[in-house]
Amino acid sequence: MVRQNAMNDTIVALATPQGLSAIAVIRLSGDDALTITQKVFKGKNPVEQPSHTILFGTLHNEGSPIDEVLVSIFKAPNSFTKENSIEISCHGSPVIVKEIIKVLLKQGARLAEPGEFTKRAFLHGRFDLAQAEAVADLINAETDNARQAALNQMRGGFSREINHLREELIHFASLIELELDFGEEDVEFAKRDDLRDLILKIQGYLRSLITSFDQGNVIKNGVPTVIAGKPNAGKSTLLNTLLNEEKAIVSDIAGTTRDAIEDELILGGINFRFIDTAGLRETSDVIEAMGVERTRDRMKKASLIIYLFDLSQTTLSEIDKEEADLKTLGIPYIKVGNKVDKAAPALLDEIKKQDFTFISASQKTNITDLKDKLLTAFQVKHVKAGDVMVTNLRHYQNLLQTNEALERVLDSMPNGITGDFLAMDIRQALHYLGEITGTITTDDLLDNIFSKFCIGK
Amino acid sequence: MVRQNAMNDTIVALATPQGLSAIAVIRLSGDDALTITQKVFKGKNPVEQPSHTILFGTLHNEGSPIDEVLVSIFKAPNSFTKENSIEISCHGSPVIVKEIIKVLLKQGARLAEPGEFTKRAFLHGRFDLAQAEAVADLINAETDNARQAALNQMRGGFSREINHLREELIHFASLIELELDFGEEDVEFAKRDDLRDLILKIQGYLRSLITSFDQGNVIKNGVPTVIAGKPNAGKSTLLNTLLNEEKAIVSDIAGTTRDAIEDELILGGINFRFIDTAGLRETSDVIEAMGVERTRDRMKKASLIIYLFDLSQTTLSEIDKEEADLKTLGIPYIKVGNKVDKAAPALLDEIKKQDFTFISASQKTNITDLKDKLLTAFQVKHVKAGDVMVTNLRHYQNLLQTNEALERVLDSMPNGITGDFLAMDIRQALHYLGEITGTITTDDLLDNIFSKFCIGK
Repeated sequence: MVRQNAMNDTIVALATPQGLSAIAVIRLSGDDALTITQKVFKGKNPVEQPSHTILFGTLHNEGSPIDEVLVSIFKAPNSFTKENSIEISCHGSPVIVKEIIKVLLKQGARLAEPGEFTKRAFLHGRFDLAQAEAVADLINAETDNARQAALNQMRGGFSREINHLREELIHFASLIELELDFGEEDVEFAKRDDLRDLILKIQGYLRSLITSFDQGNVIKNGVPTVIAGKPNAGKSTLLNTLLNEEKAIVSDIAGTTRDAIEDELILGGINFRFIDTAGLRETSDVIEAMGVERTRDRMKKASLIIYLFDLSQTTLSEIDKEEADLKTLGIPYIKVGNKVDKAAPALLDEIKKQDFTFISASQKTNITDLKDKLLTAFQVKHVKAGDVMVTNLRHYQNLLQTNEALERVLDSMPNGITGDFLAMDIRQALHYLGEITGTITTDDLLDNIFSKFCIGK
Repeated sequence: MVRQNAMNDTIVALATPQGLSAIAVIRLSGDDALTITQKVFKGKNPVEQPSHTILFGTLHNEGSPIDEVLVSIFKAPNSFTKENSIEISCHGSPVIVKEIIKVLLKQGARLAEPGEFTKRAFLHGRFDLAQAEAVADLINAETDNARQAALNQMRGGFSREINHLREELIHFASLIELELDFGEEDVEFAKRDDLRDLILKIQGYLRSLITSFDQGNVIKNGVPTVIAGKPNAGKSTLLNTLLNEEKAIVSDIAGTTRDAIEDELILGGINFRFIDTAGLRETSDVIEAMGVERTRDRMKKASLIIYLFDLSQTTLSEIDKEEADLKTLGIPYIKVGNKVDKAAPALLDEIKKQDFTFISASQKTNITDLKDKLLTAFQVKHVKAGDVMVTNLRHYQNLLQTNEALERVLDSMPNGITGDFLAMDIRQALHYLGEITGTITTDDLLDNIFSKFCIGK
């Protein structure tokens, strides 16, 4: 089902990142995309040229030239949005981009909402909702695994699985509903045992998709990892050593790291998003105090904490106390003993049986051990073309709800519940599946999905 | 004169800024641009399609899909570089861009040097050197005036002026050289007075171009403006008030602003590039000390200093001492009395005859007065299509040298210097003019110019 798009007005947006560069691309889509361009373009007439051709010329604002540009023509329905579309390739200057967008607005275009081009593509039936969502995932992919998973979804692999599930369910529903037509006659077209087997088979499909989300989520979103510990435990040094570059300012002055610097390390196809944090101590410095508050917040949101102990400074009782605090957060953590080269032998002897990874961040000792620990916590497979997995929280939740509805069907059957009650739960299951691909949709759902896209897509 | 480009190998680069966006564009240019693309593209064969057409398809790495893309085809000589060129428009993800460039390199392309596309366009005679330089100026333009000036230069307005000057000079040289052919016979084809008039006329042209550089430089480069003053004089607050947004962290703690935060305010077509600086005081804080050192360096390089006095904290003798220090830098400055609402009446009375602009940065009082002061210091005209002005330091220096060579001709003439000596200086003048448009050029000169371009242009 494709809803008719009430608005075919012409939208415009910068489609490339802000900044200085060789070229920038401005995208127009809508009924008047060609005629609006024609009004401001000196060169061949885009209205008269065939689709998928490129014109060289000059863009003008009331006779005054703005820039020399290339205009790419896409005529409905042979464009991404299936509408008339134009891509203007100009010199990559923010001043030029601003002038060009201004003159297009003056001619009747309006600024595009985030994701509005992709939303139009969906509403015009170019692809289903799950595929549209994959467009954003593809752009946001931070590893090659995430890119491949998103591309598979965009090309319809995941949608095919969902449609397959729907067909099985519709088959089931048709059997039930056939019974309802003969309700008075107490006919049982479908043997209850056969129905049960069919539902179990469908649940088998469902469960394999649901299970794939553990992997899919790590592949798509990475692992938010907090490096925590007391001031001077060596957090910035460890971050630098891990990333092998000087992203954080390292200084001997306690409290140097005030702003959280986010950085990423891709290990075995997983994106560990490291968050370097202000030292965990009470402080009277107002700016730093804000940093400590943020650190605790971040630790609570992390999927993994690398907790550093400065072995040159601490005692067994301090370690125990800090670890007790750490456990209250309920987040998986890796205990790291830093500055192992400067540790008192007595302390080392006391803690050697604990599950420590002993390193020296500044000497770059045993960093490989630490990386191995990170990897064993989160192992993912290599994603290949055609692999299907759930990477989207919304899809995952809908699959869970589909499964629950089917559970209700299974629960009801032995109790001799009549076909019309079974049919209600089946319809519910179909509804949740339909929301995934957008067969069933609401304005709120669409707004929520497309508002997370970038402008120009 | 166009030099033959020895290398027609195929170069590749990202042509849009780094970052997440709807699309990114990767550019290929060189003999094999089409055949390299063909090897990794599943869709219509770009080699067989006409120039200026667009193909939809999938890019592959050894059979594994990387992304769905649009391929724009430009066949030699109908491309920017006059070589075979391809523009690949993919989803705007750094992971995808990296994969695509990798697979193109594997097929025999190489990474482009900065400005290499424009350099090839110049070497293949698309435009002269001054026009090529304007391409970079166009991208870097920060105001609409700067954009228009660069566009005028790119479209050949400035080059026409230079060529006109060259023609006049060549006419002069031909008259002189005609004499040399008849040297033995003591013929004077050109009356010395007529020659003198011709040189004066040429110098008139030259001087108007040379004079235009004052405006051109401010239009192109803006006015580097330092906001200076003692700690807590209100520098960050003033910057925020001027920019009307919270770019700098403002805090009551002296020494908060450690990193120079650069920002811009466009007033009357001029870009005032404000530099917020660490407080000017002796300090024991090691990080802050680096900041103070930088502040003095920056003040020396500025074209304008806005110097803030905290009127709630200072005395007449302190003001006099600071201003004496300031004068030693020899840079134009505007004296600003901040926190005028908290100033002692006695102090205000003492300094009211001095050339102060009294403001309250936090109360946003009299900020318009300060902006007017900035504007009166640097007034520029509005640049229109076709206006010719010198914006490039290299061109300016060559014009000065041309003028000096002509001065030598003028100086020599009354002394009865023979034609062959006059011809030497004329040839020198022609040389300097030729370097502007690249009629005369060296590898060093070209390397120096194009290395300042961005990659992908």
